[in-house]
Amino acid sequence: MKPKDSMVNAFVPGAAMLSPEDAALVARREAALGPAYRLFYANPVHLVRGEGVWLYDKDGNAYLDTYNNVASIGHCHPHVVAATARQSAILSSHTRYLHEGVLDYAEKLLATFPAPLSHVMFTCTGSEANDLAMRIAREHTSGTGIIVSENAYHGVTAGVAEFSPALGPGVPLGVHVRAVPAPDPHRAAAGDVAASFTAAVQAAIDDLIRHGIRPAALIVDTVFSSDGVFCDPPGFLKGAVAGIRAAGGLFIADEVQPGFGRTGDAMWGFQRHGIVPDMASLGKPMGNGYPVAGLVLRPEVVAEFGAKGRYFNTFGGNGTAVATAMAVLEVVEGEGLQANAAAVGRYFRDGLRDLATRHEAIGDVRGAGLFLGVELVSDRAAMTPDAARTARIVNALREARILISATGPRANILKIRPPLVFSHANVDLFIDRLDQVMQAER
Amino acid sequence: MKPKDSMVNAFVPGAAMLSPEDAALVARREAALGPAYRLFYANPVHLVRGEGVWLYDKDGNAYLDTYNNVASIGHCHPHVVAATARQSAILSSHTRYLHEGVLDYAEKLLATFPAPLSHVMFTCTGSEANDLAMRIAREHTSGTGIIVSENAYHGVTAGVAEFSPALGPGVPLGVHVRAVPAPDPHRAAAGDVAASFTAAVQAAIDDLIRHGIRPAALIVDTVFSSDGVFCDPPGFLKGAVAGIRAAGGLFIADEVQPGFGRTGDAMWGFQRHGIVPDMASLGKPMGNGYPVAGLVLRPEVVAEFGAKGRYFNTFGGNGTAVATAMAVLEVVEGEGLQANAAAVGRYFRDGLRDLATRHEAIGDVRGAGLFLGVELVSDRAAMTPDAARTARIVNALREARILISATGPRANILKIRPPLVFSHANVDLFIDRLDQVMQAER
Repeated sequence: MKPKDSMVNAFVPGAAMLSPEDAALVARREAALGPAYRLFYANPVHLVRGEGVWLYDKDGNAYLDTYNNVASIGHCHPHVVAATARQSAILSSHTRYLHEGVLDYAEKLLATFPAPLSHVMFTCTGSEANDLAMRIAREHTSGTGIIVSENAYHGVTAGVAEFSPALGPGVPLGVHVRAVPAPDPHRAAAGDVAASFTAAVQAAIDDLIRHGIRPAALIVDTVFSSDGVFCDPPGFLKGAVAGIRAAGGLFIADEVQPGFGRTGDAMWGFQRHGIVPDMASLGKPMGNGYPVAGLVLRPEVVAEFGAKGRYFNTFGGNGTAVATAMAVLEVVEGEGLQANAAAVGRYFRDGLRDLATRHEAIGDVRGAGLFLGVELVSDRAAMTPDAARTARIVNALREARILISATGPRANILKIRPPLVFSHANVDLFIDRLDQVMQAER
Repeated sequence: MKPKDSMVNAFVPGAAMLSPEDAALVARREAALGPAYRLFYANPVHLVRGEGVWLYDKDGNAYLDTYNNVASIGHCHPHVVAATARQSAILSSHTRYLHEGVLDYAEKLLATFPAPLSHVMFTCTGSEANDLAMRIAREHTSGTGIIVSENAYHGVTAGVAEFSPALGPGVPLGVHVRAVPAPDPHRAAAGDVAASFTAAVQAAIDDLIRHGIRPAALIVDTVFSSDGVFCDPPGFLKGAVAGIRAAGGLFIADEVQPGFGRTGDAMWGFQRHGIVPDMASLGKPMGNGYPVAGLVLRPEVVAEFGAKGRYFNTFGGNGTAVATAMAVLEVVEGEGLQANAAAVGRYFRDGLRDLATRHEAIGDVRGAGLFLGVELVSDRAAMTPDAARTARIVNALREARILISATGPRANILKIRPPLVFSHANVDLFIDRLDQVMQAER
């Protein structure tokens, strides 16, 4: 029973021989969780513990985690674990009572943003943050049209799934949604990423209007993670942002993937492009595993929404959520993780580019800080995508105890997104294992 | 600047004199959180700590919490706090790796449901659970029509807000949504709640079909909390459930309010009515403050959704979420909290009914277990709603250090929803204070 959706690196039940223990767990999952859940890998990993950049399976084997951006400051960081434990023993109540914790955190978080972004609203998930952004954009613009990139993923609520083409053909896009080609330098017209992307967004705006749909927003993950990781050249978003604003719409930066210092050169991915969004949605790394997320915005944008109605998210911004998120921010700043992402990310890209001199299958190495994409091809000159090889490498690395996954509409981009505490030695280990795996491929 | 929405018991900025400290916090909220946030009470409460049924303000004053159903087994229950702390130090990863924790909890949770409900999917919030229920219902029925009660609240995603009339006129209902009168015994035709509600749902079904909209689901909070708390007579939902199913739609029980033993006579609110829903959504009390929620369903209902696509909620069902939820379930069972809700709830209703013999303003006392509604009227024979008195009483109780709130489309129902560890002595204190407050009213 092969899953019919488009998920990259999904376990396919029945396709591989599992250990009796793992087979039993898979059977329990099917019985209790049902058919919509997916595992990673041909041979799923059974995890029991995490610490820093390491994850451990039930037999005590250590896996180098180069994929999980939720535990962005390292699995089970003691400063964060302590904050969660301390505050959950004191109070976890909600935002309809006065509580200083939510304000202390909100102010500290907002201080990391450019001045026009001076409000934050708390949710529990990035999906909820993008869903709220959409509601606010509709209210502010009186429009409904949404523009996204062709393989974008923004979340799983009904509203957000309608503009998340990465969910595959089983989840239709909304009639008010237009998907534009990602800013892929290898596929942009005349190789001009900025001009191509600007033109594509403008064409989408025109098409929305032609259909009587007023544009509400352009929303992009500012590292284009699920499209295949596109960060360069810096500034390529400017024209598209100007275009959506000229059409009366808003620009929403989805910072769930790049945010909290991952790109190395800035705290937020949009800063790479020299732009200030109208809203920025935050998620995964915000609580290092604790469910906390949020939406940062310009006051003008939410004025009407706030006057006409209220927003209350029961757990959003509760005492423990904000204490945990505060501890994460303290670690990001205190341990210099943005600078580490920049330095180790550069070393990582250099190492991968060196590897590319020895492996023809590596068509491109790209990214920013500790968000890297390695494009695998069967013909480097033609940049022919090689999804099969990509899947084999991801699974071979898993057997070599390195966790990554793949992404992109052609499933041929290795997605590398380790905890920000990643070290030079961790990079060396990764490069060495990838080299071995690719050599064995030939 | 009075909030324009319909929130009961909302703080109105500028309407009351605050202490300098509280005024400073309110100003910080407006600056950092923006205009969509609301506080409770004319004079907001500034909380710093919670323990069991007690909440403490910054000056050390203790408030009896008879309102917050999130901390359903008591604020900061040590068994739950310990579970959160323990697991967050071990692993908080997601459901794309094998992990026994999520299965152990899923199986324990499902064992509390009638057999046909044998799958559970994890989310972070009740809003996400209802949003997912809607997506699954659409897929299964090929319909979009949703029927809710007139003042229902089911959540804040864009999709769910469209069928949450309690959010007020600023948040329009979807064109595919029909709202029917709540099963209010004082307003039902010929006093027959079951027949009235069945007829109203059938009329909504007919109206949807007349507009070319295929019914997808009837969804109700099985204690009708925001409609004013309606639990009797048991069984009144049967006809409506049969009606929606005959029309090809599903019945979704929103158990965010009544679930986890609160109604005393059963673990789940729908059980009071002798029905089995197609899906049951869970939320607030599930993690006693930790953001965890879920959707329990019949396998047939999710088969097509699971075959066509996947559902992944990054934090949903993570190691710490399920360890925390497991601890909550252990306490509900181990401390006999459902039985306590039944016994103390009965004592509470008796006390309130005794009070009604002395206060004409109490028009009705109703509810199940520890979910109680007290209807306040200016004329008992005519059951004339008295929202102004209700607001005064809620605020006077806050000054008397008892926390409750009000509900209902006419804002005249005291909503009483204490932690399930509530004792006879807690009830006595509540009744005594309410008596004093109501005497002072006269």
